[in-house]
Amino acid sequence: MVESFCSFDSAHNHLLSDSFMEEANSESLSSYLSIFDFTRNYRFLLQFTVFDNFQAVAEDKDNKFLMKAVKEAYKAVESGDGDPFGAVVVYKDEIVVSCHNMISKHTDPTAHAEVVAIREACKKLNQIELSDCEMYASCEPCAMCFAAIQYSKFKRLVYGVKVEAAIAVGIDALISDALRGTGSFQKVELKIKKADGDAAVIAEQVFENTKAKFTC
Amino acid sequence: MVESFCSFDSAHNHLLSDSFMEEANSESLSSYLSIFDFTRNYRFLLQFTVFDNFQAVAEDKDNKFLMKAVKEAYKAVESGDGDPFGAVVVYKDEIVVSCHNMISKHTDPTAHAEVVAIREACKKLNQIELSDCEMYASCEPCAMCFAAIQYSKFKRLVYGVKVEAAIAVGIDALISDALRGTGSFQKVELKIKKADGDAAVIAEQVFENTKAKFTC
Repeated sequence: MVESFCSFDSAHNHLLSDSFMEEANSESLSSYLSIFDFTRNYRFLLQFTVFDNFQAVAEDKDNKFLMKAVKEAYKAVESGDGDPFGAVVVYKDEIVVSCHNMISKHTDPTAHAEVVAIREACKKLNQIELSDCEMYASCEPCAMCFAAIQYSKFKRLVYGVKVEAAIAVGIDALISDALRGTGSFQKVELKIKKADGDAAVIAEQVFENTKAKFTC
Repeated sequence: MVESFCSFDSAHNHLLSDSFMEEANSESLSSYLSIFDFTRNYRFLLQFTVFDNFQAVAEDKDNKFLMKAVKEAYKAVESGDGDPFGAVVVYKDEIVVSCHNMISKHTDPTAHAEVVAIREACKKLNQIELSDCEMYASCEPCAMCFAAIQYSKFKRLVYGVKVEAAIAVGIDALISDALRGTGSFQKVELKIKKADGDAAVIAEQVFENTKAKFTC
C-alpha cells in the first residue's frame, strides 16, 4: 500500500488534488479490510480481526486527519498564503479547525500552521486550553510551534514528516529540533543582552509584586 | 543607585506606578551625570567622559525601553489581560509597539507579550521581518517567544529578568531555557507520534512538490 502510494505519486509528481486525497483515503481503508481474505486460521483470524480493527481504526483516524493537514500544506503554497505546512485540531474525532501557514497572508512571522490552528481552535471553543484535543501537523513542529502546542496542553500530537525533510529543501535557518531537545539557534545572528541597569532591577520585582494576581 | 532602587521598592512593596517609573528614569539619568563630579584627573576624566557618555546613552536607552516593557508587564496583570510580561519593539530608537501578555484577553495561549509585539509591529510596519528592530522584553523569552524573535530576524534582544524569577513564583510548567539550549519539555504530559501510515508517506512529499513555490 505504501509502495503503491509512492509510485503513484512519483509517476505523477504533481501537487496532490482533493480527488486524489479522497481516493487515497478509501484505498487505504479497503487495504486494511482485504488482509482478512488471506487469513485461514479462524481463531487467529478472530484475534487478528479484533487487534487489526483496533489498529486499523486508530491508524485510519490518524491517516484521515493527517491527510487533511497535508492538504492544508499544499493549500498554503497554492493560495500564496505561506509555506507548505498544515495543522488540524481534533476534538472527539471531529475536526475543530483545519489551518495552514499564513505568514505571507497575515504579514506575521508567527503565523505558522500550528499557531494559527491553536488560535482559531481556542477562539472557536472559547477556551484557553485544548487538553481534550489532538493536534495533527503535516511536519514535525518547530520550537515555536512545539512550545505553543505544549502551552495549549494538547493531549496528543501526530506529525507527518520529520524536520529533516524541510531542512533538505532549504527551510533550515530557524528550525529547532525541539522534540530532541537540541536547537539550531546558534545559526542566527542575534545579539542578546541580559540588561544590567536600573530597569533590570525593577524587572526582577515584577513576578513577586504580581504573583497574587497573575493567572499562570 | 541600584541599591536605592531596591530599598525604595522594598519599603513600598506595591505595584510600580507610572509616576514612580518616570521619577526612576530621571534619577537614573542624573546618577549617570553626577559621577563626573568625583573625577579629578582631567585626562582620565576626558576619556572616562567619552566612554561613560557612550555607555550612559546606550544604557539609558536600554533602561528606558526596558522600563517601558516592565510597565507593560504590570499593565497585563492590572488590566486582567494576562500574565506579568511586557515587550517593546524599537526601530531607530523609537518605540514601534509596546505590548503585554494577552492570553486571557484574546483567549489565546500563544498571545505572549513578545508574540503580540511581533504581530503588531509587523502589521504596523507592513513587513514580515524586523531586522532593523530591537526587542525589549521584561523577562527572558520562553522557547516559543525566543523562536518567534528569531523568525522575525530582530537584530538585538534585551531582556530584564531571567526565567528563574518566573519559575520561582510558579510559572514553571512550560518555561524552556532556549538561550542555554536546554528545555523543560519533559515536564509536560504530551503523547507524541511520528505517523507511519499512508498520510505520513504523502506528507514526506510536500516539500519536494512545493519547493519551487514556497517562500522560506
